[in-house]
Amino acid sequence: MQIAIVLFDRFTALDAVGPYEMLSRAPGAETVFVAESAGAVRNDSGGSLALVADRRLDDVPAPDLVIVPGGPGQSAQMDNETLLGWLRRVDATSTWTTSVCTGSLLLAAAGLLTGRRATSHWLALDTLKTYGAEPTGERVVTDGKYVTAAGVSAGIDMGLTLLGRIAGDEHAQAVQLLAEYDPQPPYDAGSPEKAPAAMVEQWRARSRFILE
Amino acid sequence: MQIAIVLFDRFTALDAVGPYEMLSRAPGAETVFVAESAGAVRNDSGGSLALVADRRLDDVPAPDLVIVPGGPGQSAQMDNETLLGWLRRVDATSTWTTSVCTGSLLLAAAGLLTGRRATSHWLALDTLKTYGAEPTGERVVTDGKYVTAAGVSAGIDMGLTLLGRIAGDEHAQAVQLLAEYDPQPPYDAGSPEKAPAAMVEQWRARSRFILE
Repeated sequence: MQIAIVLFDRFTALDAVGPYEMLSRAPGAETVFVAESAGAVRNDSGGSLALVADRRLDDVPAPDLVIVPGGPGQSAQMDNETLLGWLRRVDATSTWTTSVCTGSLLLAAAGLLTGRRATSHWLALDTLKTYGAEPTGERVVTDGKYVTAAGVSAGIDMGLTLLGRIAGDEHAQAVQLLAEYDPQPPYDAGSPEKAPAAMVEQWRARSRFILE
Repeated sequence: MQIAIVLFDRFTALDAVGPYEMLSRAPGAETVFVAESAGAVRNDSGGSLALVADRRLDDVPAPDLVIVPGGPGQSAQMDNETLLGWLRRVDATSTWTTSVCTGSLLLAAAGLLTGRRATSHWLALDTLKTYGAEPTGERVVTDGKYVTAAGVSAGIDMGLTLLGRIAGDEHAQAVQLLAEYDPQPPYDAGSPEKAPAAMVEQWRARSRFILE
């Protein structure tokens, strides 16, 4: 099973590494980071983190599983036909096509989520709808072979959920145990329903700035 | 505030990226990935992931916050005096010295955790004790300026906890909200207390293989 994780300038690192850490542990998985050009790809936090894309998009024509992360740099890719065309081509033969955070906007822009239940970062759900998907409030949404996760850290839950589908519950539980994924956040502010209302409204007002 | 995240061959990616994603969002933070040599550093999963170390250890002599991840490659560093000596020197002036997973074994090997309460990956707690620390079963342990996290994903909780100490509760909650860190694992097998007993015993029996 070949897993391709897409990188682009100003992606969010945890969007990519969360599901990577779960799914790369699937039996027989070959995981490759891909980008338009091979080499270091810088993230959204001042570019202080770089992951290496070992392969170009064109070098990976038929992955079994595609993971598209999000991040502020997603907006610059929404009309990048090189990337969107690749997404359409690999989706034609993929077993699973997935995203984390605003990565779902790229899948939607490629036309792959039209009429499908899907999710995205909570600040991007309205935008996701304008691209033809049917947003839900769930953290991980599965519609056929399309699996989309909410913002950033939701990719870990998506990865573990999908690992269970691919490799079985017992294997997924072993990966959870070895990653000691028994989360204990020190605050309970991880969703717009749980965070202080004023904070949520403040970020909603700034969301255009964040997402573009 | 300068944050240095240490990389070494066969580190575990989420150990480094989890706390990075929280702490790099501290106001005024400059985050640098450091390694013995600058350049791409490959991880523990067949080297399919590489993070770029932009600076050599010697180029970062006085970070305010040090983060040491773990991973199977940690065992090869336990007598690496270049790394251990750097850890001792930067610890002399750091505000916070931290680790995730088996990264605490490196701090302990450098003599920094002697007599201190600390934690590590659940499979490494006995080894941590042989290096003079006092292991606890908590997910995030703070003893003075030393903050250690349990296995892999615990680094996210460590990062968010420390972000609250550094930047205040409200800032940390905003980072949690934007990272949508409202975990919903599909299984409840993330600790040795919660996973199936037979699975835990199986991995304990194999732990020497995993950790070395």
